[in-house]
Amino acid sequence: MKTIRLSIVGFGVVGQGLAELVASKQELLRQQFDLEVALVSVANARHGFIYRENGLDIPLLLELAAQRRPLTEHPGVVGWAQPLDGLLATGDDVLAEATGTNLRDAEPGMSHIRGALMHGIHVITANKGPIALAAHELMGLAKQRNLQLRMESTVMAGTPVISTLREGVAGASVRSIRGILNGTTNYILSAMASGRDYADVLAEAQAQGYAEADPTADVEGYDAVAKILILAALVFGQTLRPDQVVRQGITHVTRDQMLQALREGKRIKLIGSLFFNENEQLQARVEPITLPEQEVLAQIEGVMNALTFEADTLSQVTIVGPGAGRLQTGQGLLADLIAVSRTIA
Amino acid sequence: MKTIRLSIVGFGVVGQGLAELVASKQELLRQQFDLEVALVSVANARHGFIYRENGLDIPLLLELAAQRRPLTEHPGVVGWAQPLDGLLATGDDVLAEATGTNLRDAEPGMSHIRGALMHGIHVITANKGPIALAAHELMGLAKQRNLQLRMESTVMAGTPVISTLREGVAGASVRSIRGILNGTTNYILSAMASGRDYADVLAEAQAQGYAEADPTADVEGYDAVAKILILAALVFGQTLRPDQVVRQGITHVTRDQMLQALREGKRIKLIGSLFFNENEQLQARVEPITLPEQEVLAQIEGVMNALTFEADTLSQVTIVGPGAGRLQTGQGLLADLIAVSRTIA
Repeated sequence: MKTIRLSIVGFGVVGQGLAELVASKQELLRQQFDLEVALVSVANARHGFIYRENGLDIPLLLELAAQRRPLTEHPGVVGWAQPLDGLLATGDDVLAEATGTNLRDAEPGMSHIRGALMHGIHVITANKGPIALAAHELMGLAKQRNLQLRMESTVMAGTPVISTLREGVAGASVRSIRGILNGTTNYILSAMASGRDYADVLAEAQAQGYAEADPTADVEGYDAVAKILILAALVFGQTLRPDQVVRQGITHVTRDQMLQALREGKRIKLIGSLFFNENEQLQARVEPITLPEQEVLAQIEGVMNALTFEADTLSQVTIVGPGAGRLQTGQGLLADLIAVSRTIA
Repeated sequence: MKTIRLSIVGFGVVGQGLAELVASKQELLRQQFDLEVALVSVANARHGFIYRENGLDIPLLLELAAQRRPLTEHPGVVGWAQPLDGLLATGDDVLAEATGTNLRDAEPGMSHIRGALMHGIHVITANKGPIALAAHELMGLAKQRNLQLRMESTVMAGTPVISTLREGVAGASVRSIRGILNGTTNYILSAMASGRDYADVLAEAQAQGYAEADPTADVEGYDAVAKILILAALVFGQTLRPDQVVRQGITHVTRDQMLQALREGKRIKLIGSLFFNENEQLQARVEPITLPEQEVLAQIEGVMNALTFEADTLSQVTIVGPGAGRLQTGQGLLADLIAVSRTIA
């Protein structure tokens, strides 16, 4: 039996989702993967980094988090104010970085991931910022230190698109990607296709928790841009800046445009795309596109996401699945954790 | 740089497809995976097993195969009449087993795979027979000897469904699977949906090479049954016999039924499925099913395949892609080969 000492830094929805799976999947991990995962440390922005040598009580942690009580109330823990100090002091095997995405400078995730890798700790992350802005540096650092850095959940949550592109079709040359990479905007556009106005649907999505109070990151396409940057780096080996992605959100899509498209047997979707132009330069775009309804992407409704890629050996492959959610995102981290465990002797 | 000494046993369409990729992807394998693949031996049923210590000339082999000339015309080779004798004598690293599928006793693939594993050789295979009939034995043998046995191409060619189910969503509990797992029947049903008769479309599919002269394996559902057996074993850990799969082919689907379904906004597809009944017993079926057109599976046309699964942590995930073809199947073997190389020190 292999044992992995896991640290979760960032204990919001995603970090809690992973913790919940680590607890509920204990038996499965032992039986299927001969793997014991001990959650030994957890950090959030409010209460710093806590550590317990023999493992933390996950149900208790989830309870404390739900009640917004300090994680330091967990008995028998030692603490550090800064997650990175705690990580380096305790020497865990794997860091699950799950702090919030920041597309300006990727902090604090960037420092956590860089620091962990520099100190021999494998990293799995759901944080889009560091991978979108610095995949090249971080992947290089991991390779240099012979460590794993995995990020399944940064694109389409636990729906396995990153592992498919990097491992499932290893050896194929991917030529283009396009996808519905943001569930909030797809929910809004799907609802508008039934004849409703943007503002109405947005308000409803906010009420149901599918859209945030400030919906800018979603409806202006910034979230999809982050995912396109990640795919550009991981699949095409190219580091693009956010301003190199041609970006148009959905705020100017009108009900009339939606209905006109429907009458023509078409659908308007917010599509992120990566493809080569005639000069073999990689083009990156996020924009509303009118698709014929026979295309699989046109059929993706509500909060579901989908990604289509073309490769030299495979014509076209499409993956459809959830793109967000507590357990869905936790699942991506769990798969990453299992993949890391396979590389540990 | 890692070097893998590869043997391809079975040098028909699939084996040749892999050889072609090994040749054309040399540079990519070096750059992306730090991997050198030397094709040192090849066998077919006509000419036995040939071996060349310093690697075979792949373009020459493909030329000999295309002209149906004996592979032994390749200069500087030593030969064995039986592939297994050659394999064991030469001690290659990886066997690519690509002989034809036989669902009665899985031979000769079964003996090749078993023999290779018993002698310390990793195996990748596109041959459905041994995995459909004996996955449990063969996976156990591989595990015992600490060897890899991979079979991406046995279901949906190189479209990565096996790696997705086993690795991409590792940790998730898959609850059900359904899929369009045979391109020939989907091509026929798609064409019938435009108002044509089964017999007409079958004749056309045969003329175009999408259906074989004896189409029984496809149109009666046996090929899909093999894939359902493989998924039952790999995903649910259950060894089923072919006669435990409820099977109905497409030969009795009429044009009138197709058109009736269309009028109701539905499509008839040959669906392979695995799910648990109310007594938690795994049910396996292959049969024509009428699907509402909003379902992604209903939209899959022509020779494309698709598989949908439900998992506890992911709701529903669907993968759409090619299910056959020389390079498409070779791609699955190539991805398997790269995965094996990652486990070799």
